[in-house]
Amino acid sequence: MFDTVLIANRGEIALRVARTCREMGIRSVAVCSTADLHSAVTRVADEVVCIGPPAARRSYLNIPAIIEAARRTGAQAVHPGYGFLSEDPDFAEICAAEGLTFIGPTPEIMNRLGDKARARATMAEAGLPVLPGGEHPPDDAAEAKEAADAIGYPVILKAVAGGGGRGMKVVHDPRDLIRAFHDTRASARAVFGDGRLYLERYVESARHVEVQVLLDNRGNGVHLGERDCSVQRRHQKLIEETPAPGLDPSLTTHMCEAAVKAAAAVGFTGAGTFEFLVDGTDFTFMEVNCRIQVEHPVSEAVTGVDLIRQQIRVAAGLPLDLSQDDVVPSGHAVECRVNTEAPERGFAPTAGTLTDFRPPGGPFTRVDTHGFPGLTITPDYDSLLAKVITWGADRETALERMDRALAEFVVEGHGVSTTIPLLRKVLREPDFRAARHDTLLLTRMLGET
Amino acid sequence: MFDTVLIANRGEIALRVARTCREMGIRSVAVCSTADLHSAVTRVADEVVCIGPPAARRSYLNIPAIIEAARRTGAQAVHPGYGFLSEDPDFAEICAAEGLTFIGPTPEIMNRLGDKARARATMAEAGLPVLPGGEHPPDDAAEAKEAADAIGYPVILKAVAGGGGRGMKVVHDPRDLIRAFHDTRASARAVFGDGRLYLERYVESARHVEVQVLLDNRGNGVHLGERDCSVQRRHQKLIEETPAPGLDPSLTTHMCEAAVKAAAAVGFTGAGTFEFLVDGTDFTFMEVNCRIQVEHPVSEAVTGVDLIRQQIRVAAGLPLDLSQDDVVPSGHAVECRVNTEAPERGFAPTAGTLTDFRPPGGPFTRVDTHGFPGLTITPDYDSLLAKVITWGADRETALERMDRALAEFVVEGHGVSTTIPLLRKVLREPDFRAARHDTLLLTRMLGET
Repeated sequence: MFDTVLIANRGEIALRVARTCREMGIRSVAVCSTADLHSAVTRVADEVVCIGPPAARRSYLNIPAIIEAARRTGAQAVHPGYGFLSEDPDFAEICAAEGLTFIGPTPEIMNRLGDKARARATMAEAGLPVLPGGEHPPDDAAEAKEAADAIGYPVILKAVAGGGGRGMKVVHDPRDLIRAFHDTRASARAVFGDGRLYLERYVESARHVEVQVLLDNRGNGVHLGERDCSVQRRHQKLIEETPAPGLDPSLTTHMCEAAVKAAAAVGFTGAGTFEFLVDGTDFTFMEVNCRIQVEHPVSEAVTGVDLIRQQIRVAAGLPLDLSQDDVVPSGHAVECRVNTEAPERGFAPTAGTLTDFRPPGGPFTRVDTHGFPGLTITPDYDSLLAKVITWGADRETALERMDRALAEFVVEGHGVSTTIPLLRKVLREPDFRAARHDTLLLTRMLGET
Repeated sequence: MFDTVLIANRGEIALRVARTCREMGIRSVAVCSTADLHSAVTRVADEVVCIGPPAARRSYLNIPAIIEAARRTGAQAVHPGYGFLSEDPDFAEICAAEGLTFIGPTPEIMNRLGDKARARATMAEAGLPVLPGGEHPPDDAAEAKEAADAIGYPVILKAVAGGGGRGMKVVHDPRDLIRAFHDTRASARAVFGDGRLYLERYVESARHVEVQVLLDNRGNGVHLGERDCSVQRRHQKLIEETPAPGLDPSLTTHMCEAAVKAAAAVGFTGAGTFEFLVDGTDFTFMEVNCRIQVEHPVSEAVTGVDLIRQQIRVAAGLPLDLSQDDVVPSGHAVECRVNTEAPERGFAPTAGTLTDFRPPGGPFTRVDTHGFPGLTITPDYDSLLAKVITWGADRETALERMDRALAEFVVEGHGVSTTIPLLRKVLREPDFRAARHDTLLLTRMLGET
């Protein structure tokens, strides 16, 4: 096992990883921008290294500074968390070249699955159903138009290098295709440095359901059940839960088994998530995420498995210490993402210093947060402040518990507002309550298009 | 079901009860002394009533003020928590006379089991093994001496009305018996208003193991497994866990089944705890607690059952919504009590205002606390500030997680110190780690007698 792991991330996920390191008796190194030198992770990690100024490209995306921090602190492995460098195969390759273990799949797998068009083809080959779509990224707008006409409208344009719900555009009207292609290609170039796009039939109203898989280097693989992440705004998840409510268990079992099988077929190792669209009794593959996800705690809550621990074990070359029979999900878990955003102002990020901060507690309630009284929230980073996870023997209990937990959550600071009131509104929404919702729920609630 | 429940308590347990009320859709009324008007429960309860000055006898023990608060707020039931009025059969009777449901067993059962000498006789009759002891409380010192000589030394003198680990005295030398009898009788009179004592053989080194039972008014009863509470100082528990480590499961199963059977035999209803001493493969009954206990969350963590919800359901005349087959304990849970005491000064209570307070969070970690930044801790009340509960698939994981959680717990305030460093020391103690400890562990560690 590693003596020392460097955590190449910030916020709640850095703290999450540091906690498991400590529980495993592993020394952890937190790397921080100058904006984060007093952040919560610095109290839990064993060592802290400043890697640059607040701008992410000069700190959390600054590969030489991170590699140097690892060398200086004697780290043998790097946990990338989510976002930042977590899906960058170049970073994984550089780690390997520097003798550092990247805690994630191999760079080859990351390359193959990170390219969304290639991932789609790979998974179709591995037996997963995919939506009608183009086989190859079109070279120009005319070729895209031709492909879209063949697929049928609405279609969705997706950046080959996309992720995190960005770099996507839905086209309903054939006349909008050419302009949408140019716009999306330009923004994909700007955001991901890669303007290639691919096309797929767009499913208007569906459920977003994903499967958590875990595979080691010895040929063992398990799934930890599915997560329903249908409560989204512009492809950004707000509420996640497991099991997926209102779906036929034989459907979800089939999806889960298909995901592990496909993962094994391509040689995937570590923790990954297979995202699917579920429309009635059909499911189609969307993408694979080769990293830990924000919503992983709901799977932990129902299975008792520490996913970060398993990631570290697998990266260290150890076998999974659980088989599929050991994974016995119990009850229902929900996660709400508390973001420092103002929903009434188009979800604009808010910033300021927290004058009061009291996370909820009590029975079957978990909070993952880097917040504390006195924390200054800057506009430099993602607006996720806290994840509240509640568990119940059934969905109703878990939801009631969530509402109780959110009601007692105190977040105060001049200029700071959060998504808590909106989250509570969704919890009370009859369609959500009855599990009749789909990915358009929030759009309808907000009157957005 | 009740519309409104009054919570006749304070601190973390008042908050605990208010949380479940909210989750059940029940209005809750918090009663507070003037010292507690800004306490944490006032943010979660639906209504707050001030019932008197800080001194407990003028507020939390002030029966007329509590009854009046219930009348004024339209409460139909009273949850007494633990301590204060929770074991007072007179209070339960007054509630009944005022048309209020006391959430606990009947006054008859409380009378029968609250008298420790009678409880001992009752439970021996119901089939539970008891230690050699006197059948009746001796009238005077001479009679006590005679009983002690017959039982054999060491003996323990216990107040008939005792509880919470107070009103007990161990006598090793026959020559000390008379003086010990007079001293203990005087202090029992002072503390409990009842000087009667009874005698029992004292077991020097044993494990304190208790069984959580839950019975309704319809003849249904279950146990939620056992809890080991052997880490004690002067009969005050510091660390509790479930299952009891290092014991033969057939022994604990036998104890659990015997406890439910005995509870049913005497007509016990609601949540109760049967306390036993375990010496090798023998167990003997000590006492029954007719209320929720501080350490109940460890049982919740391994079973998924909300004990407060079950208490409320039973009090409302509903049947238990679970059978013994539904109770499937999973993994291991530990609780540490964080008290505002200074172990290095004989566990003297400390007081002051919290300038910083950051409870731990993250995976499989629960915190029940009324603490928050700005809370002023006064010497008026019990020193319990927080309970930290961690769960793990096995004991080792739960203990590592607990150490991690305690390490990240920030409690700061001028003059305030806590038992956190001592708790962490116990967690590292080889005898505790190997589950070779008994109730004398802490005495040995502290060099006390």
